[in-house]
Amino acid sequence: MKNKTDISSLDVLKKYFAEKKSVILEDYFTYLRFQSISTDPAYAPQVLACSQWLADYLQKIGFDVEIWKTSGHPTLFAQHLHAESQAPTLLLYGHYDVQPIDPVELWHSPPFEPILRGEEVYARGAQDNKGQCFYTIQALRALLERERPLSLNIKLCIEGEEEIGSAGLSRLLKEKRDALQADYIAIVDMGLEAKDEPSITLGVRGLVSMEVTVEGSHADLHSGCHGGLAYNPIHALVELLASLRDSEGKITVPGFYEGISSLDAKEKSLISWEFDEENYKRSFGIPPTGGEKNFPPQERKWMRPTLEINGISGGYTGTGFKTVIPAKAFAKISCRLVPGQEPQRIVSLIKEFLEKRTPLGVTVKIDAYPGGGRALRASPQSAVAQAFSEAFTEVFGKKCQVIYSGATIPIVEEMAAVSQGQVVLLGLGLPDDQIHAPNEHFGMDRFEKGFLIISRAIEFLESPK
Amino acid sequence: MKNKTDISSLDVLKKYFAEKKSVILEDYFTYLRFQSISTDPAYAPQVLACSQWLADYLQKIGFDVEIWKTSGHPTLFAQHLHAESQAPTLLLYGHYDVQPIDPVELWHSPPFEPILRGEEVYARGAQDNKGQCFYTIQALRALLERERPLSLNIKLCIEGEEEIGSAGLSRLLKEKRDALQADYIAIVDMGLEAKDEPSITLGVRGLVSMEVTVEGSHADLHSGCHGGLAYNPIHALVELLASLRDSEGKITVPGFYEGISSLDAKEKSLISWEFDEENYKRSFGIPPTGGEKNFPPQERKWMRPTLEINGISGGYTGTGFKTVIPAKAFAKISCRLVPGQEPQRIVSLIKEFLEKRTPLGVTVKIDAYPGGGRALRASPQSAVAQAFSEAFTEVFGKKCQVIYSGATIPIVEEMAAVSQGQVVLLGLGLPDDQIHAPNEHFGMDRFEKGFLIISRAIEFLESPK
Repeated sequence: MKNKTDISSLDVLKKYFAEKKSVILEDYFTYLRFQSISTDPAYAPQVLACSQWLADYLQKIGFDVEIWKTSGHPTLFAQHLHAESQAPTLLLYGHYDVQPIDPVELWHSPPFEPILRGEEVYARGAQDNKGQCFYTIQALRALLERERPLSLNIKLCIEGEEEIGSAGLSRLLKEKRDALQADYIAIVDMGLEAKDEPSITLGVRGLVSMEVTVEGSHADLHSGCHGGLAYNPIHALVELLASLRDSEGKITVPGFYEGISSLDAKEKSLISWEFDEENYKRSFGIPPTGGEKNFPPQERKWMRPTLEINGISGGYTGTGFKTVIPAKAFAKISCRLVPGQEPQRIVSLIKEFLEKRTPLGVTVKIDAYPGGGRALRASPQSAVAQAFSEAFTEVFGKKCQVIYSGATIPIVEEMAAVSQGQVVLLGLGLPDDQIHAPNEHFGMDRFEKGFLIISRAIEFLESPK
Repeated sequence: MKNKTDISSLDVLKKYFAEKKSVILEDYFTYLRFQSISTDPAYAPQVLACSQWLADYLQKIGFDVEIWKTSGHPTLFAQHLHAESQAPTLLLYGHYDVQPIDPVELWHSPPFEPILRGEEVYARGAQDNKGQCFYTIQALRALLERERPLSLNIKLCIEGEEEIGSAGLSRLLKEKRDALQADYIAIVDMGLEAKDEPSITLGVRGLVSMEVTVEGSHADLHSGCHGGLAYNPIHALVELLASLRDSEGKITVPGFYEGISSLDAKEKSLISWEFDEENYKRSFGIPPTGGEKNFPPQERKWMRPTLEINGISGGYTGTGFKTVIPAKAFAKISCRLVPGQEPQRIVSLIKEFLEKRTPLGVTVKIDAYPGGGRALRASPQSAVAQAFSEAFTEVFGKKCQVIYSGATIPIVEEMAAVSQGQVVLLGLGLPDDQIHAPNEHFGMDRFEKGFLIISRAIEFLESPK
């Protein structure tokens, strides 16, 4: 096939990108023009149109495409399974839905009319996730246009509800178990700490959240007439909440740490543990003194579970003062989880612990919120982690760091569990890309880097060392 | 003087009241028609008109009246000092200002058009305090109309800012120290627990209130990215607040209980300590489990200081959930005080205690609110307590109980301190009089009882046993 270019090195890929750049930019802009805001039902036709355009696009470049109907917006599932039998499969994940655009008056140019200023593309979704999704697609296209055929099977899962919690895809996972089987999974929806700090992310923490309500009397009471008689629900609440952690920052709930797994020494040695305490203090105004005192900061953030009070309210909180003993008080608490912790079991343990300690004179109620999910932690020794790490190192000319995330993306763990593959999370986002905010933007330099990294990582997976 | 009636017994006083009732009611209604709402500057002319009408009224019945200008609404000061030299002086306290009337649409009849339904008078101020103030005045009038002259000197202090904190009178106390000297002080602004339970009140607790603010980072943080790194200000706050009391309900702040006084055994034996736990549970839905576990309920409410959290707020408290570590959290706390506790010293002790325990990574700030004041506790053995107790017993035909109040009326302690007299607090209010609410009312049967009690108590003070 005369038209296919033989690209086997970084230089060849760079040349390919340079030659195709204007066409890529044109298609990228077309993709960005779809107002695929998933949260607002008024945009449903635009979300649908976007998914259809993308399905056609993937088909044109050589994929077999299925449009999966969900309870909400559709998920695109594209496959290229023409490698030899026994060849491994890489599943790539992204999303075509975007965040809302308000406050729209703060945008310097219309959010759905993409514009290039210098090397930066401004539009809603320019980075999150249409930009990252599109360099991934361009990388796959380049590989499919090579002379030699792909010796890796490729699956692409691009959903339309990431910005609203992935409920549709989540409900579909069991039914699509076979289709989603993969050896490697790459979640292309992440970022870097800084422009010149290449990194891959090998895990996210889980999350479970709940509301704790303490109730006393039928109605608010006067603190003069009842102070010393009524057990103040706010006092019961602060006593209960304070009892959840000891003076070393350890969670005191029996069983909370039970069954949690940790990395082995070899894996630990591959991870970037440095933590710049001075920089943290400068950035946030506080020293990193939260969490368990006998673990270093980076381990506390990535590898240790937490229990945080995210909200608390009770009694009079307006201006001035009111001598009230309120009828009730409540708090919202959440735990970041690590592998081995089951969200529902954690709720039960906390519930049991608090109920046992509830003082006579008040009642306590614990209600779990929907959402959240288990943690995911992948090994830095997996083939896919090694391939992407090598690709980042090559493209940046600087050693790729292996990091973990303290945050939670429930769909990642759910997909990984169903697919049964080794996971890596990556991306070229930067903290100042203004994602979820006005004037979102993404640099074409980073678009190219993403293109190169996806391509080279696949090449490394094709011929493992 | 032919017109004067010789009244020396309860029956004679009852007869007097029956004969004068229609005139008394007419004057009482006139008093109630003044819209003397102290909190709203728009009503200032009405407050002034009310004070002038009352000054004229007191003058007509035989008092020397001064109108004391204050920083706010005037205080009326009326005297009848015609007893023999060395005769003791009784100072009576009340107020002519009233609470606002909103929500006005819930009144069944206009709040400033008094109406008699059955034996109940409906109007703003019908009880609090115009009704109680006016039966006091009628009792004094009856005694002045007796044939034999009063052998007690009488002073009347009727202020116009009780409903807004008594700031004007409070500031005037030092300057008026001489005028306010008295042997006995009766605060006629209280109520009974039930219609058939005569009681006098011999003390109020003091109050001091403050805001505790805990601050962490410059801005709210994401609990995924910072959970385990940042010391959550809500966690610091609940730990600090919980540390203020031990598991026995005792305040743990060193020095908190220092210097507090208690009654002697004889005084204790004169007090009504019974507490109906079942009734409390029925009324408020909770057992009386608050406060210090090793004191009985009535003692905890009347004689022991407290520390209550009256409000708490931090982080996300709306519907649903938000994974935030907030930049700050705060609580409003107050202490009910007993004699021997200085409000400002208590703030300093709490401040020192909390600052010492503040964990690294957050800062704590304690700001005292203005207002509040010291406790007052009078002896049940004083002449004035004995006289009023006897009067209640005689009028109700049932033994008068000696009780204390857990609440706070700062002006009472301030007046008592300046006047240097023995104090009693009393009144014929009932919990369902709807004071401070729509459809306030007061029964003419209780008006008469108040009239009889004030008259008889003065007669008992005139000829002590």
